[in-house]
Amino acid sequence: MNVFIIHAHPEPRSLNGALTALAVETLTAAGHAVEVSDLYAMGWKAVADGGDFLARHEPERLAYADESAHAFRDGTQAADVAAEQAKLLRADAVILQFPLWWFSMPAILKGWFDRVYAYGFAYGVGPHEGERWGDRYGEGTLRGRRALVSMTVGGREPHYSARGVNGALEDVLFPIQHGTLFYPGMSVLDPFVVYQCSRLSPERWEEVAAAYRARLAGLFTDPVIPYRRQNGGHYDARQVLKPGLGAGESGTRLHLLRPGEPPEAPLG
Amino acid sequence: MNVFIIHAHPEPRSLNGALTALAVETLTAAGHAVEVSDLYAMGWKAVADGGDFLARHEPERLAYADESAHAFRDGTQAADVAAEQAKLLRADAVILQFPLWWFSMPAILKGWFDRVYAYGFAYGVGPHEGERWGDRYGEGTLRGRRALVSMTVGGREPHYSARGVNGALEDVLFPIQHGTLFYPGMSVLDPFVVYQCSRLSPERWEEVAAAYRARLAGLFTDPVIPYRRQNGGHYDARQVLKPGLGAGESGTRLHLLRPGEPPEAPLG
Repeated sequence: MNVFIIHAHPEPRSLNGALTALAVETLTAAGHAVEVSDLYAMGWKAVADGGDFLARHEPERLAYADESAHAFRDGTQAADVAAEQAKLLRADAVILQFPLWWFSMPAILKGWFDRVYAYGFAYGVGPHEGERWGDRYGEGTLRGRRALVSMTVGGREPHYSARGVNGALEDVLFPIQHGTLFYPGMSVLDPFVVYQCSRLSPERWEEVAAAYRARLAGLFTDPVIPYRRQNGGHYDARQVLKPGLGAGESGTRLHLLRPGEPPEAPLG
Repeated sequence: MNVFIIHAHPEPRSLNGALTALAVETLTAAGHAVEVSDLYAMGWKAVADGGDFLARHEPERLAYADESAHAFRDGTQAADVAAEQAKLLRADAVILQFPLWWFSMPAILKGWFDRVYAYGFAYGVGPHEGERWGDRYGEGTLRGRRALVSMTVGGREPHYSARGVNGALEDVLFPIQHGTLFYPGMSVLDPFVVYQCSRLSPERWEEVAAAYRARLAGLFTDPVIPYRRQNGGHYDARQVLKPGLGAGESGTRLHLLRPGEPPEAPLG
């Protein structure tokens, strides 16, 4: 299988660097083909602007989504953007490797999504009318691919527990896992997280490496997060969860399938 | 009062541009002093890297938080970073103006936080030992300031409602509102949000402008989101919410004060 790692850390000799090196080695040894976009090493352009379009549909006023739609359709996207889209399309699994900074991705990785996730590629896909608001959340261009967040965190695990002060990890990551990976159709695994990542002892690194190897071994077989599909019949025409579903839950957990609920409509 | 607007949109003639212009005009007319950092116009460096430090404590291997701590303490931060910190310190209120891209800030604004929120300035403040894990979440360098997110959103409001497919707005924004603004001590207002922001009619713009003027009028008086303070006595030594608090809630709403609960310890 093809695995695409998007790596976002400024220091090659960091824990993030070690984890990506371990993933390349482990996955290659298992017979997979691995491609890495090392965003810092590539000098990735993080900031979305008019320079992302080789021809401007409306030169006077930049409406980024509109220009993105035209450029994606007409083949006038910046070459670096088109190249990353091709890597996503080739991939059977996508791994994001990054340090959690301010409860989100580093800017260079956020800018990768801002620019690579074009209109017509990752959003604005499928009809947006009547009861259907696009092919998204479980459907879309990247359907059939798996996604894994591998992340280092400075803080301690209890701070991210269900009642921890930082918010539960699943809530902190919801904009990424649900809003960015599941949105264009990928199936999303539980994240791999190294807490208290600063100055790991050699013993602790061995534990972390073993744990990551186990997760990499399950990349194509581990169960994925059971997010509800937008078009699976659980949301109404306003894209609001129908009454009776998610009983007893609130917040982001409403969007997880629960045992005993009516099954979703099969994928078209 | 001093108001600091951090503006992140590539097109001056955008709705975001109009909202910032309106804020400057309205707040100035009300007697406030307004300072704007227009990140695209400034050519803001979005990507955190070794170039952010005028002298390197450890030149061989970049540990960003460590270098940030040394540079903040020694006055060897990049000049653009120090200038933005000074603007934050001068401000009585901070407004973030941005379009919601992939359920978060544009990369240029994320990179503003990645770089300006130095160790010793926005995190790593106060003792981290025993029952106390720093001055954060309601305490810290930016205590006493108010923060307002003003945001444009392409999608529709029901998609962000309590049971909407995108997740509830308060959950989507939790990493920003709680994790980035409340974290170093700011008091956070409910966000001002323009949904379906593409191609507003003149009539709709008048409605939006009136609504924003009303929010700006309440910048220093409207109630703030009642997030629990980390050191207010509601979290235990592991920074986990104590039993009995937040009864009947889950997810991010656990971190909101509720009527009838024991009051927090007074601020020191």
